[in-house]
Amino acid sequence: MDVHPQIQPLAFLLGTWRGEGQGRYPTIADFAYGEEIAFAHVGKPFLAYTQRTWALDDQRPLHAETGYLRRTAEGALEWLLAHPTGIAEVELGSLDGATLRLRSVGVLCTPTAKRVDELTRELTVDGDELRYELHMAAVGEPLTFHLSATLRRVRDRG
Amino acid sequence: MDVHPQIQPLAFLLGTWRGEGQGRYPTIADFAYGEEIAFAHVGKPFLAYTQRTWALDDQRPLHAETGYLRRTAEGALEWLLAHPTGIAEVELGSLDGATLRLRSVGVLCTPTAKRVDELTRELTVDGDELRYELHMAAVGEPLTFHLSATLRRVRDRG
Repeated sequence: MDVHPQIQPLAFLLGTWRGEGQGRYPTIADFAYGEEIAFAHVGKPFLAYTQRTWALDDQRPLHAETGYLRRTAEGALEWLLAHPTGIAEVELGSLDGATLRLRSVGVLCTPTAKRVDELTRELTVDGDELRYELHMAAVGEPLTFHLSATLRRVRDRG
Repeated sequence: MDVHPQIQPLAFLLGTWRGEGQGRYPTIADFAYGEEIAFAHVGKPFLAYTQRTWALDDQRPLHAETGYLRRTAEGALEWLLAHPTGIAEVELGSLDGATLRLRSVGVLCTPTAKRVDELTRELTVDGDELRYELHMAAVGEPLTFHLSATLRRVRDRG
């Protein structure tokens, strides 16, 4: 199936990626994690995104997130995301070469979720290597570094 | 892997479901669709949810949505959802026997999305049959019937 022309500039993301990351936040202990990310398409102008992480010691599941990355006719990025921690968000941003930069413009939290106020993501692909950094404002902390990871493409086309 | 005790009351949803649905809305022509829904778990207190629909004539992909269904310690339902149409939403609700009733408490739309203001869902499982109805307030219309479908469980445990 052909990639929709509107997301052809994002086709370098397609596939399944595996690697490891490090996290820290002022309110918790530093941690490391394994991670798998997949970007897939169905011929329409968006990528389906899934992500899951696990503990490096016993492989127990940690975080996950899922959603859709859109690219508008004008080239803007729109990322819709749901998190099992009780968060749904919309991030807007732009594509610069093989680097995506996004910032949340709306974050919804369920009544029992730990409050998240803002997220920013920078994601870069260099051949078969994907790196990202995520900053987060949450539980009363200002926008602060939270996660970085490096992954390798393990399968093409998600 | 054992289902987390907090979502044991939702275990009847686990698996993959396939069927057909009918849609209508004041602003568009009536339509029918094929649909697959999956609920899965990883041992934590939420279900991972994925859904996709296709045209009955040529199987081209139509809608999709993805997210996580949480059940709180007090028994409330919290559903986080992302849609490739540019929508992210949080629905809250309750479980009555094998019937889930939810209503959106927040809907985020990207700048290029068709505006959605409110969604309600009622979903019932009777053995290996799943039925749902979805009402929607969107593009200036009040909360109005939009979708209903009947699916059969085709695989256990998603």
